[in-house]
Amino acid sequence: MDFLNTYLIYLIPVFGLIGILFMIIKSAWVTKQETGDASMNELAGYIADGAMAFLRAEWKVLGYFVVVAGVLLAWSGTTVATSSPVIAISFVIGAFLSAFAGYLGMRIATKSNVRTTQAAKTSLAQALKVSFTGGTVMGLGVAGLAIIGLGSLFIVFYTMYVVNTGGSVNGEAMAKALDVLAGFSLGAESIALFARVGGGIYTKAADVGADLVGKVEAGIPEDDVRNPATIADNVGDNVGDVAGMGADLFGSYVATMLATMVLGREIVSHDNMGGIAPVLLPMVIAGLGLIFSIVGASLVKIKNETDSVQTALNIGNWVSIILTAVATYFVVQWMLPNDFMHLTRDVIPGTTDLKEGSLVFTKNGVYGSILVGLVVGTLMSIITEYYTAMGKRPVMSIIKQSSTGHATNIIGGLAIGMESTVLPILVLAAGIYGSFFFAGLYGVAIAAAGMMATTAMQLAIDAFGPIADNAGGIAEMSQLPPEVRHRTDNLDAVGNTTAATGKGFAIASAALTSLALFAAFVGVAGIEHIDIYKANVLAGLFVGGMIPFIFSALCISAVGRAAMAMVEEVRRQFREIPGIMEYKAKPEYEKCVAISTKASIREMVAPGLIALITPVVVGFIFGPEVLGGLLAGVTVSGVLMGIFQSNAGGAWDNAKKSFEKGVEINGEMHYKKSEPHKASVTGDTVGDPFKDTSGPSMNILIKLMSIVSLVIAPHLNVAAGHNAHIQKEIKVQSMNVHQIKVEKKA
Amino acid sequence: MDFLNTYLIYLIPVFGLIGILFMIIKSAWVTKQETGDASMNELAGYIADGAMAFLRAEWKVLGYFVVVAGVLLAWSGTTVATSSPVIAISFVIGAFLSAFAGYLGMRIATKSNVRTTQAAKTSLAQALKVSFTGGTVMGLGVAGLAIIGLGSLFIVFYTMYVVNTGGSVNGEAMAKALDVLAGFSLGAESIALFARVGGGIYTKAADVGADLVGKVEAGIPEDDVRNPATIADNVGDNVGDVAGMGADLFGSYVATMLATMVLGREIVSHDNMGGIAPVLLPMVIAGLGLIFSIVGASLVKIKNETDSVQTALNIGNWVSIILTAVATYFVVQWMLPNDFMHLTRDVIPGTTDLKEGSLVFTKNGVYGSILVGLVVGTLMSIITEYYTAMGKRPVMSIIKQSSTGHATNIIGGLAIGMESTVLPILVLAAGIYGSFFFAGLYGVAIAAAGMMATTAMQLAIDAFGPIADNAGGIAEMSQLPPEVRHRTDNLDAVGNTTAATGKGFAIASAALTSLALFAAFVGVAGIEHIDIYKANVLAGLFVGGMIPFIFSALCISAVGRAAMAMVEEVRRQFREIPGIMEYKAKPEYEKCVAISTKASIREMVAPGLIALITPVVVGFIFGPEVLGGLLAGVTVSGVLMGIFQSNAGGAWDNAKKSFEKGVEINGEMHYKKSEPHKASVTGDTVGDPFKDTSGPSMNILIKLMSIVSLVIAPHLNVAAGHNAHIQKEIKVQSMNVHQIKVEKKA
Repeated sequence: MDFLNTYLIYLIPVFGLIGILFMIIKSAWVTKQETGDASMNELAGYIADGAMAFLRAEWKVLGYFVVVAGVLLAWSGTTVATSSPVIAISFVIGAFLSAFAGYLGMRIATKSNVRTTQAAKTSLAQALKVSFTGGTVMGLGVAGLAIIGLGSLFIVFYTMYVVNTGGSVNGEAMAKALDVLAGFSLGAESIALFARVGGGIYTKAADVGADLVGKVEAGIPEDDVRNPATIADNVGDNVGDVAGMGADLFGSYVATMLATMVLGREIVSHDNMGGIAPVLLPMVIAGLGLIFSIVGASLVKIKNETDSVQTALNIGNWVSIILTAVATYFVVQWMLPNDFMHLTRDVIPGTTDLKEGSLVFTKNGVYGSILVGLVVGTLMSIITEYYTAMGKRPVMSIIKQSSTGHATNIIGGLAIGMESTVLPILVLAAGIYGSFFFAGLYGVAIAAAGMMATTAMQLAIDAFGPIADNAGGIAEMSQLPPEVRHRTDNLDAVGNTTAATGKGFAIASAALTSLALFAAFVGVAGIEHIDIYKANVLAGLFVGGMIPFIFSALCISAVGRAAMAMVEEVRRQFREIPGIMEYKAKPEYEKCVAISTKASIREMVAPGLIALITPVVVGFIFGPEVLGGLLAGVTVSGVLMGIFQSNAGGAWDNAKKSFEKGVEINGEMHYKKSEPHKASVTGDTVGDPFKDTSGPSMNILIKLMSIVSLVIAPHLNVAAGHNAHIQKEIKVQSMNVHQIKVEKKA
Repeated sequence: MDFLNTYLIYLIPVFGLIGILFMIIKSAWVTKQETGDASMNELAGYIADGAMAFLRAEWKVLGYFVVVAGVLLAWSGTTVATSSPVIAISFVIGAFLSAFAGYLGMRIATKSNVRTTQAAKTSLAQALKVSFTGGTVMGLGVAGLAIIGLGSLFIVFYTMYVVNTGGSVNGEAMAKALDVLAGFSLGAESIALFARVGGGIYTKAADVGADLVGKVEAGIPEDDVRNPATIADNVGDNVGDVAGMGADLFGSYVATMLATMVLGREIVSHDNMGGIAPVLLPMVIAGLGLIFSIVGASLVKIKNETDSVQTALNIGNWVSIILTAVATYFVVQWMLPNDFMHLTRDVIPGTTDLKEGSLVFTKNGVYGSILVGLVVGTLMSIITEYYTAMGKRPVMSIIKQSSTGHATNIIGGLAIGMESTVLPILVLAAGIYGSFFFAGLYGVAIAAAGMMATTAMQLAIDAFGPIADNAGGIAEMSQLPPEVRHRTDNLDAVGNTTAATGKGFAIASAALTSLALFAAFVGVAGIEHIDIYKANVLAGLFVGGMIPFIFSALCISAVGRAAMAMVEEVRRQFREIPGIMEYKAKPEYEKCVAISTKASIREMVAPGLIALITPVVVGFIFGPEVLGGLLAGVTVSGVLMGIFQSNAGGAWDNAKKSFEKGVEINGEMHYKKSEPHKASVTGDTVGDPFKDTSGPSMNILIKLMSIVSLVIAPHLNVAAGHNAHIQKEIKVQSMNVHQIKVEKKA
């Protein structure tokens, strides 16, 4: 045990290496699978090429961005004692690993799709195995790279700034190590922003454009090989749903660990690890979650054609969550001492007295917070599913309102979306309250870390959906026999449900991550309160609340503009290339791919800059407390707008899908092509950018603005003349928190 | 001048009496005008009867509510020293006067409509005169009753609790007087909630229902006498746009004065009025604004058929604003001393030292804040007009996106609505910042009071719109010659613009009013901060932010349900009453009126209870600071959702209207009945509940929750054991604020 106590810090990257090892094995297995006939391979090749073309275009722009931002960070790192130019290196590594994780995911997804189609020729069990293994590769890659990156950099910076200087683990030295480490999270989250926003615009421009001309004007089915935009549409599934979601969760995963570590520094802990147990804990939990995700993923299998795919996924998911929860209990018992306190907030400076209202907390409290995080994540997924699933009251009400036309369908969906914010917000508020009750601000952060522990498994389930969707598209385009399409449709239907619950999880994780970052920011910025009773802080709250609205507006109108360009290109090809309709001439797929690529790269810049620059401007002009108000406004409004838009879009989508099997409205059956169905298509089209572009972008927006604030916090702290919070090299020699007197201050 | 100093308090209700006097004169003039032929009178009679039927049904429900709430208030008034059961009387008077003002407005509006139609037979000038005089009666009635009510009750309570007990104007006695007075504002705002929400549901259920069957299914024009829902639609204009808007502004007008008075008590002022000048000032400004509104209204006239109606309204509006601004300067110079300070916030208890960061402010600062309020109100109106006016970029972009169908029209409108929050929020944030800079929290409140000063004129302009709209409806239904309809259309078009700017003004006023109430709440609740860095306050912020979403969802789906009931009734009448289409049989108008009435009364209850009960529950369970977080969340989110929904709705409306004259999209002209026009009708229908039900309801929601909080604040204060803020009978004998040392506290 002593050995483990000393060397635990070096063990953390090993968890990540195990993940990567399994990823390589599983990736090799997928690659080994059969790829089917020439036609299938040709289509899969187009999709893979299109996806790579997008990535290359994105990387080019991001390359410039990373260089400029890196130089600025390096320069700013020289200006304060609690930072260092090294932060730029940390930033570049974070950006690189995030991009690399996206690349790995995209590569495996564009390999798995055609192999899933081929496997679907034999059995559903095999098709599930291929597609889910593809998803697992993505999940393990993302989580593995994150843990290796964050864990190794922490070892380096901890050694450089704390061990080598003999600094205190609660003092300035550790603050510096963690500030430099925050660059890693900033890099990851910046790439995530562009991946999520750019990917979201890409996929919906292609989807809406393909549908408007193909399905509506030309009357050909979805995924028809004659539609020039169909390849772009399939590329979009990979770009948006695989790479975008992956980057989003990579960012949340890293940011929750980081925020908990920053708050962990402020905890006085008499543990067997020299006081850094609270700092190491989130990474250890993440490592355990990764291992148990591998276990859970191995359980996702079916035997017969009639077995439930959803049940298989649920078993894998629950096993990994429960094993992680149990293991975490023992880890917490082992690592943490019985009691702690929050050094910089609970103790009156210069004394060992606690402030009024201080919360001295216990290791069982910390475990309670972790459980709160797991419950919040689960409830958010369940609520999201309720609001977007077929056959439940919300979707049924939209179907009913489709019978009186387009307008009432839209009104119904908007009302459902707004209503769907109620329960998630109550769950979130209760989660904040509960995790704080158990372990203070550290509890709020560790709750987020607990929730994110099984990210590898969540991502495996998420990425499985678009792989199955693509596999179905390839089956349709290659005109394979109906039983193949039937099997891929089965997987795709499950994928739609997991996409909805995955979105609930992603929003919940983003919200808790932002709150954790927010808490970390306040400490580093050296402010005591964020008092919205002050006029300037209140003004900050208003401006912050507005940002998700303009961000959404930019995303939505970007999709509108790009879709219109796509519509014109498809119309042109139908007009100018004779024989497309008779399968005699091949459409110019690459032109449509280029339109989506160019539009998404161009349109992601403006929203990206808003997220990056606003906190810097507000922080330096108006100070850290106003920035705190701004962040609170962004977070509250962003979570609400994210839930509203994602759920409205999901509900519209499934209302439309319900017509495929036929729905009863006021005693009459309605099918595809009926008037109510046409109204439901309108709702679905409105919902597309809601649920796949602006809605999920809210996650990144709120996280990125918080992480930017955390990175600039030491500068604001110095600028504002506060630095009492970094209690230089405090040595709290022997402390029994129970003996500390809680005095009431008049 | 000495006389004026002593008796100013008694003069305030006189301003109100002057307003009522002018109202009676103008009302008599309108009544004297010709009412036209029998057919016109019959239709006008139906409308007037329908409007009264709604009011009676509403009063019945509100009667129960007022009794129950009054008893609860009376009981709660006995439980703390700083309140009194008398608050129930104050509440009932506020509720009664608000309802009475609504009644007066509705009566004059249903008289002016037919008389405007008749006047339109002679000239545009005469039609404007009749319709605008009708609006003026409404404006003067609302403002006059508000000033008489608030002014008289203040005299009574001031005499009872302060003068008769020899209490201090800065102390507990005055706090009690103002707490009891807050009941008046609570009564007014409660009635406003039901009037706005109920009226909003009524008008849009009738409008959407009439359009869906009449225009779309039966192919008959709007306002056709054969449509069974047409009377309900015209009643709705009065119920929603006249009575609803009137109650909304009555509430804002009273609440801004009250909030400023509550904050005025906390100001130590060495004036010639025994220290109550800061308390009296908002009422005096309102009185001046009322007088200058009468002056401005008298200037609204045109001579020729080609004169601009808009210009005439603008001249009247600007004259009243400028005269009020100038007069206010002299009043401020006369009433206020050179310097003040905020007693309970700036002074360290038990000393005469100022706290760090205290803002000692001047009378010129107060005047600066008032100007800030006027500028904010004006800018908000201009921005709203830009986002909703025909021919400007936002509406043009929606028109363009109508060419690709229903879905892109909706996407375009939603994006415009979201984008339109940016400038108003920046203006509002700058307004908060600026007015606080000039005169602290008192400055924020007095800015709102300045903005609301010319409420009478604003309401006259607002109410003129629906009167002209109704007049056009009567002309159409009575099949009068085209030149009559042409004149009423001219007025109606101006009315649409003023409706948009009026909404901008109403939102701005609601936002500033809520902030003023919020500031007043904090003082009375005896808390020092609202620190969103505390987990429970942050949770409150989240829950508060969610409330406007569920409130909007309830309003929107209520309209959807009621409209569907209306559709079924109209279909039934067309089916079961033969000869309607050939003008041989008369539709059963009263059945449709009954449907709208019943639906609106039933559906207004749930949102109303949310607004009333949430603050009480949160305040008593979680304490005043969490309630403060909740209020901040409601206000930020409510303002955003209000602007988003109102502007999206307004822009969709005018995009649709643009097709009537024909619009050019990509070089091609499109008119009514074209495919893009049909898409624009969908947008307009979605926008109807947005702009006339849920959007404007946000105003009342945020104000009502703040005023409820203010009323329960003394109870929370006692419950939380805070009462240091009410510095019992402090006598600040002689104080020169410049000599007070501003000490830095470590």
